[in-house]
Amino acid sequence: MKIIIDAMGGDLAPREPVLGAVMAHREFGCDIVLVGQEERIRSILEKDNITLPRGITLVNATQVIEICDDPATAWRKKKDSSMTVGLKMLAAGEGDAFISAGSTGALLSAATLLVKRIPGVKRAAVAPIVPTGAGGAVLIDAGANAECTPEYMAQFALMGSFYAEKVLRRENPRVGLVNIGAEPSKGNELYKQVNALLTAAGEKGTLNFVGNTEPVELASENAPDVIVADGFTGNILLKTMEGTAKFIVHNLKSLFTTNLKTKAAYLMLKGNMGGFKKMLDSRETGGTALLGLQKPVFKAHGSSDAYAMLHAVEKAIDYANADIISAIAKDVNSLLLAQEAEQ
Amino acid sequence: MKIIIDAMGGDLAPREPVLGAVMAHREFGCDIVLVGQEERIRSILEKDNITLPRGITLVNATQVIEICDDPATAWRKKKDSSMTVGLKMLAAGEGDAFISAGSTGALLSAATLLVKRIPGVKRAAVAPIVPTGAGGAVLIDAGANAECTPEYMAQFALMGSFYAEKVLRRENPRVGLVNIGAEPSKGNELYKQVNALLTAAGEKGTLNFVGNTEPVELASENAPDVIVADGFTGNILLKTMEGTAKFIVHNLKSLFTTNLKTKAAYLMLKGNMGGFKKMLDSRETGGTALLGLQKPVFKAHGSSDAYAMLHAVEKAIDYANADIISAIAKDVNSLLLAQEAEQ
Repeated sequence: MKIIIDAMGGDLAPREPVLGAVMAHREFGCDIVLVGQEERIRSILEKDNITLPRGITLVNATQVIEICDDPATAWRKKKDSSMTVGLKMLAAGEGDAFISAGSTGALLSAATLLVKRIPGVKRAAVAPIVPTGAGGAVLIDAGANAECTPEYMAQFALMGSFYAEKVLRRENPRVGLVNIGAEPSKGNELYKQVNALLTAAGEKGTLNFVGNTEPVELASENAPDVIVADGFTGNILLKTMEGTAKFIVHNLKSLFTTNLKTKAAYLMLKGNMGGFKKMLDSRETGGTALLGLQKPVFKAHGSSDAYAMLHAVEKAIDYANADIISAIAKDVNSLLLAQEAEQ
Repeated sequence: MKIIIDAMGGDLAPREPVLGAVMAHREFGCDIVLVGQEERIRSILEKDNITLPRGITLVNATQVIEICDDPATAWRKKKDSSMTVGLKMLAAGEGDAFISAGSTGALLSAATLLVKRIPGVKRAAVAPIVPTGAGGAVLIDAGANAECTPEYMAQFALMGSFYAEKVLRRENPRVGLVNIGAEPSKGNELYKQVNALLTAAGEKGTLNFVGNTEPVELASENAPDVIVADGFTGNILLKTMEGTAKFIVHNLKSLFTTNLKTKAAYLMLKGNMGGFKKMLDSRETGGTALLGLQKPVFKAHGSSDAYAMLHAVEKAIDYANADIISAIAKDVNSLLLAQEAEQ
């Protein structure tokens, strides 16, 4: 297993991705290729007294894609950027997965054009795992495609289903469509059409569609394994979860520290809050898979520290080990056939 | 001040709306008209040994709009329902506001056709107050219109702005547009167009537009006072907040009760959690105003108990006291002129 890491991507690059790569190599024993400004990477290692292990190789790339670069063209304009060089290596088979904490938009554009989509797949999608009452679900699409057709979204359902099966290890994953009501007639025109497509796919056994899912049900033990959304709605959902969690945790803390008694209680609890914080911590979830591409590409959070990068490597290994891509390639066509048969 | 209450609406009707009405009369001294099946209402009062105060009058309505009735036609098919009778009274000036805990869809259709929209307003919208780091914001539209045009949403911004000014008492309310990124070019086609309209309205001084707002910013102290969304997205946002809060509170509780030490700490804190629970409790927020109608109509939560109904009456009084409707009527036309001038 060889993981290619963009050493220059993210707010804390190159230091944190580099240290994370070293940690991941120690922890998982995987080979790692660090792509970026070689001199800077070497000076980080030197500063921390780290001798480059044999399993980690450096590939020099002089340019860096910045957050202000136009996502659509950055990879092409900066041909010697760590992202462009790394993705080209992945496409050429010189690694099993690619990880970057750089701009999501730039990564999506670059990966779509360099690694290419699975034949038949109309759009790549961002598919993070979000906390639910059932132990987490794949949310797809969480922001790659602000404008979607019903067909894109039916494909997201299929891709998310394979991901939930192989990576979350859910048998016959339950696929829900985000919506504002349970009845198939609920929602806007787009969602009514997607409901019809997924119902048909469910009836044909292509996937296990459980119907519309209101976001409030995500707290329940019966929450689906896959949550399908267009990229606009999925992103709103994801960021609302994040915002609400932030808001509550902030308020809890001020509640706990209002007086001496509660402060004492808070201190007693604090040590036990690890598990809870872990669940909400974006560093633990490690980032998000890009699904629909011919090779595993993984987006780490922009604010990834070494620890987050370690987790991103773990998820990227899961993604590379699971045989998702060939499964999608095989079934995306049967989904298309099912749709055509409908018409 | 005279508030007309649908005694038959909601899961706990007629008992809880009736008891809530009695509480509200005692608390706020307002006159109340209870509309519903008179015999059932009288037997509830008798059972609780309540003598009908002089300020509360009963109006008999033999039918009840059920959740299974078609929302679009229920009010017309059930002409003697508490909702239809109550709204007709409001339209005829026999009260200052109408409250129902019945079906939102039925209430919207009935109110739009019986009370009518403010001239110039294209769509009525649901505008609950949601918790934010800045002490709450008006979310508009939270679910009335699954399909929106840019013009509808520009009007929501204006209506929400007046509501925030008069009811939340925010000076020159800051209006944000829900979106997946801060730049005006972010989002789908609809949101790009709305951003342009609101930017123009902001430049003309019609409202105080602060730009796109990602939901994660709602936790911040700088959160806007008004959050504009189409009804689909607004409803997803609202229900995601609710679901995430549920999920966290549930997990906190299980975390707190894992061992004797944390259990003891939890018990110490429990008494102080009142304020926190209050903030998340839908009974406290009391429901949501319907904005854009010629008279104040207020939707209480479907699961409203007497206490929730008390709060709904409080909010409905606020709504009726604030001179929002004439302000909307006056400015909705200047907004239209501004739009026309743009074209």
